[in-house]
Amino acid sequence: MEIYAGVDLGGTNIEVALTDGTGKVMTHRTHPTEADLGSARVIDNIIGTVKEISGGREIKAVGLCSPGIIDVKKGVCIFAGNLNFRNVELKRPLENALSIPVFVENDVNAAALGEWRFGAGRGTDNFILVMLGTGVGAGVIADGRLIHGRSNATAEIGHTIVEKDGLFCNCGGRGCLEMYSSATGIVRMMKQYLMKGNYSSVTADIQGDWDRLTAAMIAQKAAAGDKLSQQVIREAAEYLGVALVNYVNTFNPEMVAIGGGVAKAGDILTQPVKEFISSRAMEVQANDVSVVLSSLGEDAGTIGAAAVAIESIKTVKDL
Amino acid sequence: MEIYAGVDLGGTNIEVALTDGTGKVMTHRTHPTEADLGSARVIDNIIGTVKEISGGREIKAVGLCSPGIIDVKKGVCIFAGNLNFRNVELKRPLENALSIPVFVENDVNAAALGEWRFGAGRGTDNFILVMLGTGVGAGVIADGRLIHGRSNATAEIGHTIVEKDGLFCNCGGRGCLEMYSSATGIVRMMKQYLMKGNYSSVTADIQGDWDRLTAAMIAQKAAAGDKLSQQVIREAAEYLGVALVNYVNTFNPEMVAIGGGVAKAGDILTQPVKEFISSRAMEVQANDVSVVLSSLGEDAGTIGAAAVAIESIKTVKDL
Repeated sequence: MEIYAGVDLGGTNIEVALTDGTGKVMTHRTHPTEADLGSARVIDNIIGTVKEISGGREIKAVGLCSPGIIDVKKGVCIFAGNLNFRNVELKRPLENALSIPVFVENDVNAAALGEWRFGAGRGTDNFILVMLGTGVGAGVIADGRLIHGRSNATAEIGHTIVEKDGLFCNCGGRGCLEMYSSATGIVRMMKQYLMKGNYSSVTADIQGDWDRLTAAMIAQKAAAGDKLSQQVIREAAEYLGVALVNYVNTFNPEMVAIGGGVAKAGDILTQPVKEFISSRAMEVQANDVSVVLSSLGEDAGTIGAAAVAIESIKTVKDL
Repeated sequence: MEIYAGVDLGGTNIEVALTDGTGKVMTHRTHPTEADLGSARVIDNIIGTVKEISGGREIKAVGLCSPGIIDVKKGVCIFAGNLNFRNVELKRPLENALSIPVFVENDVNAAALGEWRFGAGRGTDNFILVMLGTGVGAGVIADGRLIHGRSNATAEIGHTIVEKDGLFCNCGGRGCLEMYSSATGIVRMMKQYLMKGNYSSVTADIQGDWDRLTAAMIAQKAAAGDKLSQQVIREAAEYLGVALVNYVNTFNPEMVAIGGGVAKAGDILTQPVKEFISSRAMEVQANDVSVVLSSLGEDAGTIGAAAVAIESIKTVKDL
């Protein structure tokens, strides 16, 4: 059996899993990233964890996913704010230390690849994964290939415009999806309704301390019947609907999967998104697409990273 | 020298050109489509015109572009309103009659392919062509490949949402780009300003008959300094800017080319589009992209069709 290592490099932890060629996780390990100690330390931590988890077994390839902008060909992290990385080489030092082929990819792209090959998107040719967390990102598989663009800066659905003259965003734009449908956006919207004097049962839980408000709390209250929470989730879902109609009319996909923390809201979120797409997307595209929750859960990051290794090794063989 | 035939099937005319392998037009012929006489007649007209123009020379492959939704693999036109086509086989009857490989593609996709290989987009890997006419369409080359999607219904930029609760569109959606930035949208906007009592020098030309208003006239007046015409073109450009920011943040392309009748407005249209993208797209993506006018002009349709033949033959060889 061929064994692959998937490395999910995050701001806090490095998660490493060994998988087989079908993305099934065999074993898993976590190590602190220690980004504050510099990129060389982070790379040492990755090398150490991969060596440790392999336990002498032969690993066919390593997939590494990192936040930020990645030069996929060179395996360099051009920029990642939460790692404090700027032009950090990843592929070369890892290959030198491990003597295994290493492939680097952006984390959302890797998650999309994993979900497409081994999760909800299996069997499709055109697949979109949207991740709703504190930020909003996406990865797109078009005609059986992950799209990369000029600088591997594709599928920034969180910064597509859903409100022409809307809220100013820290990307420099205005009216970006991320301002409305991220966890942060949902909390902001709830605060604004509360400030206007609206009643919600969340107020009892947070006891006047609005900093304790979370999107998870609002989703929970919505599920329990709180009208204002339902209103807020519905608005966030409609804005997500706008961005997804645009993606559905642009990529004509078979499937859109929604993942990330906000997706835990489940049907309360996905139902209005589905309705919005049915009523607003073009007929052929609306009929072709199904909207589902992502399925890989906790292991999405490492399975995505392993998928990068598996797919890349296949491509190298094909050449 | 290898010779290719490009057939541009339109509602009124069939345009056929012979080109070399670099998309250079050698000769050109036009024949009425006669769509009202049925699809069999249309196919006969194509066959006759291709035979006539070839004059016995060997043609390596035929590229045919058609409006509407095309099944590219089967070479079938699934639906094209202005041809009155529904599930019309094109590839098979043409190949049988001509004994040459025939490849069928949607007209906007073909134009994008032509502009990418032989026009403004040469040398890029990520390229978007937007066509602004009575409708608005696009074709997208992502990582060196024209994207097709599940049903070859991709890149419908004209039906991406630029105004969440905007004008109802005949696609069933609302706030679609096509309602604002097409020739039709520009004329509608001007009429609304005039109805409110605004002054424009176009009124002298149309002598009270608002049905004589055209987008070309408005663009001309804008260039000549008419303030209201400038305002209308600027608004149309801003809406186009919204849709293009979304495409630029999604595809991270090197180039966006703007073609079609409305593009004849030139700088008056493209300048505010460029400014909008600079100020609203993400930094990396905004830096990577240049916005230009399409360059193939009158022959765009037939060169695009020929490009489909040239690219498809290449792909067949590669397999």
